[in-house]
Amino acid sequence: MSIRIAISGYGNLGRGVEAAIAKSGDMELTAVYTRRSPESLKIKTAGAPVRSADELDKGVDDVDVLIICGGSATDLPVMTPKYAAKYNVIDSFDTHACIPEHFKNVDAAAKAAGKVGIISCGWDPGMFSLNRLYAQSILPDGRDYTFWGKGVSQGHSDAVRRIEGVLDARQYTIPVEAALDAVREGKNPELTTREKHTRECFVVAEEGADKERIEREIKTMPNYFADYDTTVHFISAEEMKRDHSGLPHGGSVIYSGTTSEGTKHVIEYSLNLDSNPEFTGAVLVAYARAAYRLNQEGVSGAKTVFDIAPAYLSPKSGDELRAHCL
Amino acid sequence: MSIRIAISGYGNLGRGVEAAIAKSGDMELTAVYTRRSPESLKIKTAGAPVRSADELDKGVDDVDVLIICGGSATDLPVMTPKYAAKYNVIDSFDTHACIPEHFKNVDAAAKAAGKVGIISCGWDPGMFSLNRLYAQSILPDGRDYTFWGKGVSQGHSDAVRRIEGVLDARQYTIPVEAALDAVREGKNPELTTREKHTRECFVVAEEGADKERIEREIKTMPNYFADYDTTVHFISAEEMKRDHSGLPHGGSVIYSGTTSEGTKHVIEYSLNLDSNPEFTGAVLVAYARAAYRLNQEGVSGAKTVFDIAPAYLSPKSGDELRAHCL
Repeated sequence: MSIRIAISGYGNLGRGVEAAIAKSGDMELTAVYTRRSPESLKIKTAGAPVRSADELDKGVDDVDVLIICGGSATDLPVMTPKYAAKYNVIDSFDTHACIPEHFKNVDAAAKAAGKVGIISCGWDPGMFSLNRLYAQSILPDGRDYTFWGKGVSQGHSDAVRRIEGVLDARQYTIPVEAALDAVREGKNPELTTREKHTRECFVVAEEGADKERIEREIKTMPNYFADYDTTVHFISAEEMKRDHSGLPHGGSVIYSGTTSEGTKHVIEYSLNLDSNPEFTGAVLVAYARAAYRLNQEGVSGAKTVFDIAPAYLSPKSGDELRAHCL
Repeated sequence: MSIRIAISGYGNLGRGVEAAIAKSGDMELTAVYTRRSPESLKIKTAGAPVRSADELDKGVDDVDVLIICGGSATDLPVMTPKYAAKYNVIDSFDTHACIPEHFKNVDAAAKAAGKVGIISCGWDPGMFSLNRLYAQSILPDGRDYTFWGKGVSQGHSDAVRRIEGVLDARQYTIPVEAALDAVREGKNPELTTREKHTRECFVVAEEGADKERIEREIKTMPNYFADYDTTVHFISAEEMKRDHSGLPHGGSVIYSGTTSEGTKHVIEYSLNLDSNPEFTGAVLVAYARAAYRLNQEGVSGAKTVFDIAPAYLSPKSGDELRAHCL
């Protein structure tokens, strides 16, 4: 019998989750839940209904795990604890500073309901966090560096779009090669924000807009750009559509540590992703499998990627994994 | 209170484990057990005794986890089940084809004794296996490639040393850059053995030995060299000592997968290790922490890296990990 997955929210991430379910032979998508009008939504999966989010609140019984595809700022802090009181849930909550509080809220709700809630799944937090943990546990005398990109930062793209005279914008975060090289060589450099990443913006401006002002406003924007070397390119709407409609991303966690005088080891985990939301969705789906199995074993409460034994992510049996994957 | 670790066997790996314990604030080395005469062995850790392996057979009570540093061919298949009947144990058993049988033997002994036995720890099997598992679980539509090196293969070095007229030899396994590049670009190439790795040998020959014959015997040696492009360099004993006395190794697991038509993702995990035995020892020590904690929770039986939630490897609490590492 398939694991029955439902999706709450059908933006980029919800569609990424849907794509990942289609690649998973042991799962089926039973429904997509939306706060929009269900009739207005066309989804890709043949036969799966689109339902109103109200149904989830009332309670549905055809779901083993609910994957919550909402924003970390306002959606998930409310939705994940609420739904954990009824369903096994997974989210991709990524406001690092608020993870402890979110964990506590989901844990209380999930434990009371006898459900599992896995929070902060994806690649950062998620796979990158795992790699930081494995590396520092193996080599306690060392340090980690995280580089992001080359990839589209949606937050930074949005920030540029809010500038007067900007019709559309795409911002790429790019790691600085010299910094990557120094870290890979185990030199443990001290790096400023500016030395780690550069930012590159592609902007479609309104006709007659003051491009010099727009460029200046971007480059001096506090938090977002002021601490970085930023390049701005003005392009046409056609070029934007042709060259920048994907959402690629990726990055590296590089850990450099020592085991004895003069003995260095460098561990690197890198992702090169054509689609950030599709990869994140695929991570969520693998952890949905784990949530289902853990709950079947009687486990309840909030979990993170740190708490889940890797074998729970795979549809293969322990015997199969030991024989072919170890 | 510290976790009390004992080491069985004091070769390269045993010394690597000792170095890793010295870097772990929550552990202490209580004894090294040897089949040699204990008086003949000098170890680095001040205050830790060297004892006869016979003591382990009789039973000692000052050890929480025993790390067994023996060979996979003949030592571990006997030692790990034997010691799992008395102690929590860890080994680095790496004969891939025999892992299922070894697991079964250790599982039976450990379960009967109420102990935990973690087998096949290290980097391959070990960290590389974990990365294969995580990647294929996230991206079921994809494939993995494992490259080894650049690094010293002790098995191949030994094979060259057995040739008549060879005084000493060191063999490096080197991944082929063009193959690495094709895999990193997500091209999913079909690669022959020869296309993935080359082999480079440094040989100290006896005075007057027939170097052409030695080189020919190396290059045509079945299984070890015949399927590879091999380069042979004759060097002096001084050069061998000066340039080739380390045991560096490493490699990469590269996984390339797709989530939808035309959408590729590449995951790469790479190790660049100055000392193969010291890094392997560090992995064993991290998993010793997990074995101790699992057993404290009442768990028993054989485990592999697939069965251990990452948080068990870290001395930090769940709260700390969620706040600072996720």
